[in-house]
Amino acid sequence: MITIGEYLCQRLHNLGVNHVFGVPGDYVLDLMDVLVESPIELVCTCNELNAGYAADAYARVKGMGAVCVTYGVGGFSLVNAVVGAYAERVPLVVISGASDRSIRRDNLLLHHTTGDYNLQLSIMEKVTVASVILTNSAQAASQIDQTLAACLHHKRPVYIEIPRDLVYRPCIPSEKPIYLTDNLTDAAALEEAIEEAAFLLEKAEKPIILAGVEFHRFKLQDKLLKLLEVTGYPLATTILGKSSISEMQPQFIGTYVGALSREYVSQRVENADCVLCLGAIMSDMNLGGFTANLNPNNLINANSEKIKIKHHFYQPVFLGDFIEGLINKLSHKEAATLEIKPAVELKNLEFIPVPEQKLTNARFYERMNHFIAQESFVISDTGDAIIATIDLLMPQKTDFIGQAFYLSIGYSIPACLGVAFAAPNTRPIVFVGDGAFQMTAQELSTIIRHHLNPIIFLINNDGYTIERVIQDNIYNDLQPWKYHQLPAVFNGESWSCQVGTEGELEKALSIAQGNIDRLSFIEVHLDRFDCSQGLTRLGQALRSPHA
Amino acid sequence: MITIGEYLCQRLHNLGVNHVFGVPGDYVLDLMDVLVESPIELVCTCNELNAGYAADAYARVKGMGAVCVTYGVGGFSLVNAVVGAYAERVPLVVISGASDRSIRRDNLLLHHTTGDYNLQLSIMEKVTVASVILTNSAQAASQIDQTLAACLHHKRPVYIEIPRDLVYRPCIPSEKPIYLTDNLTDAAALEEAIEEAAFLLEKAEKPIILAGVEFHRFKLQDKLLKLLEVTGYPLATTILGKSSISEMQPQFIGTYVGALSREYVSQRVENADCVLCLGAIMSDMNLGGFTANLNPNNLINANSEKIKIKHHFYQPVFLGDFIEGLINKLSHKEAATLEIKPAVELKNLEFIPVPEQKLTNARFYERMNHFIAQESFVISDTGDAIIATIDLLMPQKTDFIGQAFYLSIGYSIPACLGVAFAAPNTRPIVFVGDGAFQMTAQELSTIIRHHLNPIIFLINNDGYTIERVIQDNIYNDLQPWKYHQLPAVFNGESWSCQVGTEGELEKALSIAQGNIDRLSFIEVHLDRFDCSQGLTRLGQALRSPHA
Repeated sequence: MITIGEYLCQRLHNLGVNHVFGVPGDYVLDLMDVLVESPIELVCTCNELNAGYAADAYARVKGMGAVCVTYGVGGFSLVNAVVGAYAERVPLVVISGASDRSIRRDNLLLHHTTGDYNLQLSIMEKVTVASVILTNSAQAASQIDQTLAACLHHKRPVYIEIPRDLVYRPCIPSEKPIYLTDNLTDAAALEEAIEEAAFLLEKAEKPIILAGVEFHRFKLQDKLLKLLEVTGYPLATTILGKSSISEMQPQFIGTYVGALSREYVSQRVENADCVLCLGAIMSDMNLGGFTANLNPNNLINANSEKIKIKHHFYQPVFLGDFIEGLINKLSHKEAATLEIKPAVELKNLEFIPVPEQKLTNARFYERMNHFIAQESFVISDTGDAIIATIDLLMPQKTDFIGQAFYLSIGYSIPACLGVAFAAPNTRPIVFVGDGAFQMTAQELSTIIRHHLNPIIFLINNDGYTIERVIQDNIYNDLQPWKYHQLPAVFNGESWSCQVGTEGELEKALSIAQGNIDRLSFIEVHLDRFDCSQGLTRLGQALRSPHA
Repeated sequence: MITIGEYLCQRLHNLGVNHVFGVPGDYVLDLMDVLVESPIELVCTCNELNAGYAADAYARVKGMGAVCVTYGVGGFSLVNAVVGAYAERVPLVVISGASDRSIRRDNLLLHHTTGDYNLQLSIMEKVTVASVILTNSAQAASQIDQTLAACLHHKRPVYIEIPRDLVYRPCIPSEKPIYLTDNLTDAAALEEAIEEAAFLLEKAEKPIILAGVEFHRFKLQDKLLKLLEVTGYPLATTILGKSSISEMQPQFIGTYVGALSREYVSQRVENADCVLCLGAIMSDMNLGGFTANLNPNNLINANSEKIKIKHHFYQPVFLGDFIEGLINKLSHKEAATLEIKPAVELKNLEFIPVPEQKLTNARFYERMNHFIAQESFVISDTGDAIIATIDLLMPQKTDFIGQAFYLSIGYSIPACLGVAFAAPNTRPIVFVGDGAFQMTAQELSTIIRHHLNPIIFLINNDGYTIERVIQDNIYNDLQPWKYHQLPAVFNGESWSCQVGTEGELEKALSIAQGNIDRLSFIEVHLDRFDCSQGLTRLGQALRSPHA
């Protein structure tokens, strides 16, 4: 006989969830006891929001992530992580303990509640694709299965609330595996969409593919590679879709973020006579803060929700079916006419450090483009870090993780924790500004606690640089922490330093590469207004007319 | 001509809000520029949840507090602080910037959003008593006034969202001051309630008053003092209502929290033949985690929502009117029959430190009962800190701040920031456990940044002791930070140390008292299971039958 708590853990584990992030609290202790006994590892974080970010990043890598908290103080503290996962299509399972069902029935005023025992559900319903409070032994298995199926199908967060008295109740398990809804496709709509898209692409002289994050979420990378092979077209990606496939691929020309992009990339995308945009979330930031300039008359925009060609829609059509149709339909264009400058060619530029030279933003990231060579994950926090890393070239098997659309600052340090558990054989590299770091700094201690070995670059440019560029005032100032001294306070094994010159950076990189068994934390000092060119352009786009 | 942004600042300032806590973000930068130019000081915190906690504590002291954040990533990060304020009746004003109204109309997919521009409003509506998105020049003033009036009337949070393009628009100001709804009283119900309550109290031989937090929220302390004077009855308070009046008052016998209370206090309350419970939120924790034992047949329970005598209700009756009626009706009882042991007598016990003696929980808090002598605020975090401080005796003008019902751990450090700005001439004293501290530790840097001078006792007992007592497992372990080294990393002027013996504590207290111009941070080492007697009893009450 299996209990409801065990069944939930078993289902999660079957779906590849080997680690659950969370914070204990009395309504969830029984479930956590079950988790501790299960094959899943419970990773406790310093607070719930950070647990949410860690589980979000874990989900981006593994295809599903889970966070487990107590009712009220736990659940309401991670709302922002859930909204971020919803916005960026991340399959995050939020699990909350709750009081015994008898107390709910008697309507007692319990701690961690307002007396309204449906409040957490009613808020989570707004920011998830499925939310449920488990009701009893007979129904729990199908409630769990349906909720997890919705998470997998929509690649968006779901919510499961488990009353404390149900954890050890027997569960009547479902015989079937997790039921997955088929991806609906209207065959006639699909055929017409393929026909129309192929016609536009075949007659175009300079088509281009713009790939978004859904290739990664729906595991369609192989289809993208096949499409590239069949057509010969150049490929750009959005920021959120960055590194959906290896950026060493010779048809890859760069990341397109409107005016923030390298000039060649923005011109090649915007001057294309047909843009085949696939799997992208078309947000202002993803496309460069309103500075994108895509002509709708040349645009085929297909994602998991619909296909839009010029100004009309096809729906429902599954993205994978549409790409498959194009693979079968399109012919190969000659490389000569396509004007492809592979991004990989940038890699061949040599970087020669000038030891006494003060570090600049430009030189730092140029150096990073050579440093990121091994199998790794690059995690960039919101701010100039994510903008400056747009043009870092992700080598084979290296993946880019950033909350590039929703843009919560402080995401990267907890995300690094999540990635390190999701991909134990790679070494995460984090770029985080000082403002973002102050938001969630304590999670560095959890990274140290678990002997994880990321390389974290803390970019100290004395304040919220991204906001200084948009609109500056005293609110962009920060207390100047001695950041590089923080890992030692968190105790345990770690290595940290601060660098201000190219020579110091070289030395630090060399030590960090040697420290394969522990955190390397490098505080990089840059001037206050020394930011990426992309950020300067973004600031101009977002600046208030009153500033 | 006044702008909408200026009008909002002016109204807040008129209501005693001299400081607003917040985190900048692009949708709110214009409003923050206006705040910076206004008589209000903008205090920026490291993250939004902490800003919410700081503003909550500020509101508890000043009668209103405000937090100002950007849309989405800002607003959703502080939901837990808003729910806590709602649960504990704290008049907190949540202000969020939002995108221009034109973008909302065009339904663009903006960063920090999910594309649903009513999402934040629809969530805030569930956890506030009034929520509004400002619409235009003609309506903004009355929208602001009505919302602030609801905050003052209900003593609960409200939400004001201001689209960026409205900040500098002209505002047609309201001629009237903030319109306050009258406190409704049904005169006939009031008369009957007073009649019945007075009858029960007059015939009782051992009545007692149990006072809750609403005396503080609705500023009814003078009426309570008058009622004590007229009747001669003894007084106990709930935890949340602790220090509603001076605890040196000779009729005050202690804080009642069910079995967690001192034995005399629980017996005197539970053996009373009539309990006049006034202004209390009757929650499980406030009354001792289900261990309270109040006989409903002897109970008169009046709060701002209704009066309940035995098993029937009177409504609507304003609490202040009911107390006023009792003052005019009740006679004075003889002290001899009332069995009053004033809590103040505990103060007379001498404390003689034994220098080489290892510190224990009991001896530490016994010492604190003598240390807290000056005008101050005592802020206790959730965990054993709040339970152990139940019996600290708050001297004249000293106030107790703790999230005693909703119980978010991590509340105290940001709350200390809020209290320090709300009451600049007092010195906050904080008791915070290691688990709670890790939640929100970064806000210590904001305390240092503003040269505030609290005395913070970090109680390091190696994990979540409150949960170890309820149910222990590996999830209660924490990374053992070198806590006392943290203030130095945050830079600026501060003093910190760690103590393990009574002699070390004496030395630290003496230095802290001398350091009147800076933070004193004292890490107190206690054994892992060395907790208050109250916590041991609470643990027994909350423990799972499966543990």
